[in-house]
Amino acid sequence: MKKFIITIGRSYGSGGRMVGLKIAEDLGIKCYNSELLIEAAKESGLCHEVFEKIDEKPISAFLSFSAGKYDHGEMPLNHKVFLAQMQTIKKIAERESCVIVGRCADYVLRERDDVINVFITAPFEDRVQRAIDRDDVLPGKAEKRVRRIDKERANYYNFYSTKRWGVADSYDICLDSSKFGIEGCAKIIESLIK
Amino acid sequence: MKKFIITIGRSYGSGGRMVGLKIAEDLGIKCYNSELLIEAAKESGLCHEVFEKIDEKPISAFLSFSAGKYDHGEMPLNHKVFLAQMQTIKKIAERESCVIVGRCADYVLRERDDVINVFITAPFEDRVQRAIDRDDVLPGKAEKRVRRIDKERANYYNFYSTKRWGVADSYDICLDSSKFGIEGCAKIIESLIK
Repeated sequence: MKKFIITIGRSYGSGGRMVGLKIAEDLGIKCYNSELLIEAAKESGLCHEVFEKIDEKPISAFLSFSAGKYDHGEMPLNHKVFLAQMQTIKKIAERESCVIVGRCADYVLRERDDVINVFITAPFEDRVQRAIDRDDVLPGKAEKRVRRIDKERANYYNFYSTKRWGVADSYDICLDSSKFGIEGCAKIIESLIK
Repeated sequence: MKKFIITIGRSYGSGGRMVGLKIAEDLGIKCYNSELLIEAAKESGLCHEVFEKIDEKPISAFLSFSAGKYDHGEMPLNHKVFLAQMQTIKKIAERESCVIVGRCADYVLRERDDVINVFITAPFEDRVQRAIDRDDVLPGKAEKRVRRIDKERANYYNFYSTKRWGVADSYDICLDSSKFGIEGCAKIIESLIK
């Protein structure tokens, strides 16, 4: 099998990360998610906590968080974090077959021809239920949380790429994880590699 | 194989109709596109030319076209055409395995559990080229035409359904026909049925 990279964008509560982990397990490759942050932090010299706070947050949150953190004339912290992640994503893609979840990896790797760009989503009510079951969100707060995190991811993606988050045009394949299941989605994507 | 219905939404120039025809050929079923109009026209008693002019046109065009065509108090012609198509789509879905292209079939059939809802798209520049090659559109006018027909389809879909046209959330699976090819898309969809 030739080298390949699968990027996975995902709406919150869709199980996109689990699809990525299942593919990685089935194909014996790594799935980069928060692991990416650790590697990027190490290489950039920025401290790991900064990455965790800023990762995939929208621009307005970036600005308020980073406002006091850099000198005038220097690049804002959010852009530094994005650039460090971008370099790490490019290096990993050059090095090995893998799955990369989130972080505009599809856009970062747009010049490569060994990439399949996936988006995983599911009906809103199913995603709310997954937030409650998986992330222990209080039922009364789950809808708001799903909307907020979707919005953060969309802002991040739409700011750093020239594409639109969650729109079919931006990806090679989009799948509904409620329709096909986590394993079903993984199987469909694996069949595209073979 | 159990009975199934595949609905295909598509951006203009993506080859979505050809994907539908290929699936129908491979599986020995019918692909309803303009055939739907003929059947709906026959059963509604409305004249066939009205269907062709109004089919999948946006609401503003509906209104100006239908403005002089009905008495006050009667239902506008565009809604009559939509309702007639809706009844026909439901009847066909009850009767046989098939592919249905466009016309909000996914939304019309939302209560059924034997339906797979597909959206086919492709990068904008590839769709412009297909408009030129397939539909003999002049190169200087192709971009505008692609944008206009996409907008008409989006308006139609967003008006008659509660979903958003071309957004991953609205479908079970979305595919890029430039990435996988017409036959490749057909094969992926057929594998979901088996």
